[in-house]
Amino acid sequence: MNKLTVLISCPDQVGLVTTITRILAAYQLNIIAMREFVDEANKAFFTRIACTGDYNQTDQLKEKLLESLPDTAEVNIITKQEKQIAILVTKEYHCLAEILIKNQFKTLGANVQCVIGNYEGLRDLTEKLGIPYFYVAHENKDKSQFESEIKEVIKEYEVDYVVLAKFMRILSADFVKDYAGKIINIHHSFLPAFIGANPYKQAFERGVKIIGATAHFVTDNLDEGPIITQHTTHIDHNFGVKEMVRAGKEIEKKVLLDALELIFEDRVFVSGNKTVVFK
Amino acid sequence: MNKLTVLISCPDQVGLVTTITRILAAYQLNIIAMREFVDEANKAFFTRIACTGDYNQTDQLKEKLLESLPDTAEVNIITKQEKQIAILVTKEYHCLAEILIKNQFKTLGANVQCVIGNYEGLRDLTEKLGIPYFYVAHENKDKSQFESEIKEVIKEYEVDYVVLAKFMRILSADFVKDYAGKIINIHHSFLPAFIGANPYKQAFERGVKIIGATAHFVTDNLDEGPIITQHTTHIDHNFGVKEMVRAGKEIEKKVLLDALELIFEDRVFVSGNKTVVFK
Amino acid sequence: MNKLTVLISCPDQVGLVTTITRILAAYQLNIIAMREFVDEANKAFFTRIACTGDYNQTDQLKEKLLESLPDTAEVNIITKQEKQIAILVTKEYHCLAEILIKNQFKTLGANVQCVIGNYEGLRDLTEKLGIPYFYVAHENKDKSQFESEIKEVIKEYEVDYVVLAKFMRILSADFVKDYAGKIINIHHSFLPAFIGANPYKQAFERGVKIIGATAHFVTDNLDEGPIITQHTTHIDHNFGVKEMVRAGKEIEKKVLLDALELIFEDRVFVSGNKTVVFK
Amino acid sequence: MNKLTVLISCPDQVGLVTTITRILAAYQLNIIAMREFVDEANKAFFTRIACTGDYNQTDQLKEKLLESLPDTAEVNIITKQEKQIAILVTKEYHCLAEILIKNQFKTLGANVQCVIGNYEGLRDLTEKLGIPYFYVAHENKDKSQFESEIKEVIKEYEVDYVVLAKFMRILSADFVKDYAGKIINIHHSFLPAFIGANPYKQAFERGVKIIGATAHFVTDNLDEGPIITQHTTHIDHNFGVKEMVRAGKEIEKKVLLDALELIFEDRVFVSGNKTVVFK
Repeated sequence: MNKLTVLISCPDQVGLVTTITRILAAYQLNIIAMREFVDEANKAFFTRIACTGDYNQTDQLKEKLLESLPDTAEVNIITKQEKQIAILVTKEYHCLAEILIKNQFKTLGANVQCVIGNYEGLRDLTEKLGIPYFYVAHENKDKSQFESEIKEVIKEYEVDYVVLAKFMRILSADFVKDYAGKIINIHHSFLPAFIGANPYKQAFERGVKIIGATAHFVTDNLDEGPIITQHTTHIDHNFGVKEMVRAGKEIEKKVLLDALELIFEDRVFVSGNKTVVFK
Repeated sequence: MNKLTVLISCPDQVGLVTTITRILAAYQLNIIAMREFVDEANKAFFTRIACTGDYNQTDQLKEKLLESLPDTAEVNIITKQEKQIAILVTKEYHCLAEILIKNQFKTLGANVQCVIGNYEGLRDLTEKLGIPYFYVAHENKDKSQFESEIKEVIKEYEVDYVVLAKFMRILSADFVKDYAGKIINIHHSFLPAFIGANPYKQAFERGVKIIGATAHFVTDNLDEGPIITQHTTHIDHNFGVKEMVRAGKEIEKKVLLDALELIFEDRVFVSGNKTVVFK
Repeated sequence: MNKLTVLISCPDQVGLVTTITRILAAYQLNIIAMREFVDEANKAFFTRIACTGDYNQTDQLKEKLLESLPDTAEVNIITKQEKQIAILVTKEYHCLAEILIKNQFKTLGANVQCVIGNYEGLRDLTEKLGIPYFYVAHENKDKSQFESEIKEVIKEYEVDYVVLAKFMRILSADFVKDYAGKIINIHHSFLPAFIGANPYKQAFERGVKIIGATAHFVTDNLDEGPIITQHTTHIDHNFGVKEMVRAGKEIEKKVLLDALELIFEDRVFVSGNKTVVFK
Repeated sequence: MNKLTVLISCPDQVGLVTTITRILAAYQLNIIAMREFVDEANKAFFTRIACTGDYNQTDQLKEKLLESLPDTAEVNIITKQEKQIAILVTKEYHCLAEILIKNQFKTLGANVQCVIGNYEGLRDLTEKLGIPYFYVAHENKDKSQFESEIKEVIKEYEVDYVVLAKFMRILSADFVKDYAGKIINIHHSFLPAFIGANPYKQAFERGVKIIGATAHFVTDNLDEGPIITQHTTHIDHNFGVKEMVRAGKEIEKKVLLDALELIFEDRVFVSGNKTVVFK
């Protein structure tokens, strides 16, 4: 007996849970934990079902589920947990180091395949922690050239997700399309406050008493993709921009690592421009 | 079509979710939201299922579920949300006022039937907010007499829960037995730290940097019943006992009101000496 | 020996703390607690000094301090704690009730003089809790007429602050000017996110994972005044607009009451469009 | 002009702030930020004053302050920020890695001189991050021998603090005495709840809804030293011991790193069995 996770999203209609649980029962799968959600605005149904059962039947089970569910249903049956990821970075170490340390001690829930940076500063740390580092400069080339070089590296690995761990270049719509729903970014504010550049400077000037950070999927619209996790922390008048940046980095780490943990455990669905997160 | 909530707890065994969802389907009930949990230490299964369907069938449905589930299963089918409550108080106003205000504006999720106090200080507030107040002195009588007078009052009302909103007398095992699983208390520390009297004084002397509060079901063992909700707040060296009490009251209110909201929405199961809370 | 609090704000220059503490010593005042802050962007100095000493000398002390400090210094010597306030409301009860309950039990740190509402719905609660309620309709009159009627009521009392406890009309620049630095508002989002109307609807549509609230001083620019306190709470995909509003009300209460406590204890300075808060 | 920080603790008496600020003024020191606290239970006064001024005078200044203050006053004038530390570990990597990463990127506020472990498992990480690792086995020797070997290593370095980053051996009173006030430990519960071994198992069995961690100075009494920082996080019925341990590690890291930051910035005084922390 092994574990498998069944992920289903489809248009909502009456009787979906019953239909699904009947099929699982017919395949001798025992439900360990089940979560579901109906997005009423989008008339969409989502479920995550953890079962114990027999792996060999997954193709057949998937077919049976697709047959019995609305036409546009998406069914995903996961029998292994470990995802493969690539990381893009620029200069800041804090998110990268947190990921690489957990990767080394096998507590990340994913395997880091490679790190790609548009500066050389993080090569040393990356290589010491056993991961190949690829320097792809953005200077003196147009964006499509820059991105095609990045894609060349990523293609060498079978990658489930691309994590932007403080990667400070804006990706083109083409790049985003190639990895649709697979790119996770960290924005250094509680979106939608302080969209765009220098959020901590904006926060300082506005005199806020809270700063935050946001992990989100990347879409065409900068800083507008589906939000996965957000956290905040209190600040006060003693915080200049420098102190905000420092406190913010701790929140950025937390927000990104929490988002990754949820994604690596197949707990996150995208519904329109929002996420459904089964914690 | 109306809403009903099905609550089931029983010994865990293979196939429970399938069994249950099949029966609900046979009764033309559509599952809106479903949560379940297996307490592996106690081999116990818990589920809360919100459905839409026909009220007239609830007795028959309950019987059918009991037939199909393990012998000791408990099934509860709820077709109305509003609970009736009695409140016991001593001198402090903060928890009582929060409940009475929400009661008056119909946002409590329950109806306050009466307030019973062993002092007269809270009569004025209670009566102004439209609720009968009963003074039951504890002085010059033994505990069984005191408690039997309280029970006399409660019996006048059909009460689902007894809320101890800073009631500072310890209830006897007999009293607790009469309202088993129905009495909610607020303890002014994050249990199990600072059990017993004067927790804020204990906290001050220990020099903690966090204080908290705990809402729990009352059992025979003082401060040892199943915990429903806990919250904490940071303090610092500037907090004397007085400042801790003041900050603590805000946490006490929050913890108690959060617990009540969960209970009034039928989201809380007791499992051994713990709770399962389907938020 | 009695307590007094000395509040000073002035352009920053070398030696201010020394100058001030020397004068206090000369007046036989013993410093119990002292906080100070230099806003380097605005070259402004702020201090709050709690002392024990003799009340009769406050005028003379103030003069001496003003003589010794830069020309534009503001000096405020406070010998009583209790502020007098007026409250403006519309329909929502949650902030008002919290204030009135604390007022009744003498734990607000201020005295509520009157409540003014542009609806009648909150009269009953207000009067039950012993405070006069004035109904000032906004309908069928222009804003200046509406506001002059409000001012008529306020003038009947000696009021230190005007608290907008979910007052849903926008005040004119003229009104704001009359009570410059004296009007506290609660905005139902973590500003600057979701400025303007229907912040919870905006938050729902954006799919945020955190909502918040902001207490701020009112200036000409709607939602742009100096922020005093902010808090946030986590939400998830299960929260529709209605659930956000409900959770938001708890944060709104907390944010407003925290701000009022700080203001009533003379812990808040305004510096440009920010606040300096000596907790 | 350079920065210096003046730390003073002494028995409380009238006029201390005035006395101190006069002396600083006489030495042409300009006060940038000043915090003070009177522990009324212990009649003790504490102040931390950040100034700008001339380094050469620090000995003379210290002498002058000592002359003018009560006999048992302690005066510490700090002209450099960087502390030197040794770290003791057992098997868990999470606290050590966080410290070593910050050390490598010069954002720790201290320099790690060496890591001493009673297992070999963390040597690889430590050495990769450029710090010498010393293996001191505890097996087959008595505690005094074990500790004297640890002290041998520490003595090779000039160390201001000894950080127990999940060091799972109990130190003797003798060891603690040798580094009085210089050893920081992380306990994996919100003390005083769950003192002793296996706090997460205790927490699981009690069914708490919050877990926490505590950073404290080490004294003779296990888990009873002055608390520096505490944090908590919410858990629910889905958390077994394993999940608690996992969530707890994040809190442990945060609590320890926050404590170290405060200590390295000279913001922490010990007062009896408590701390005074000037944030």
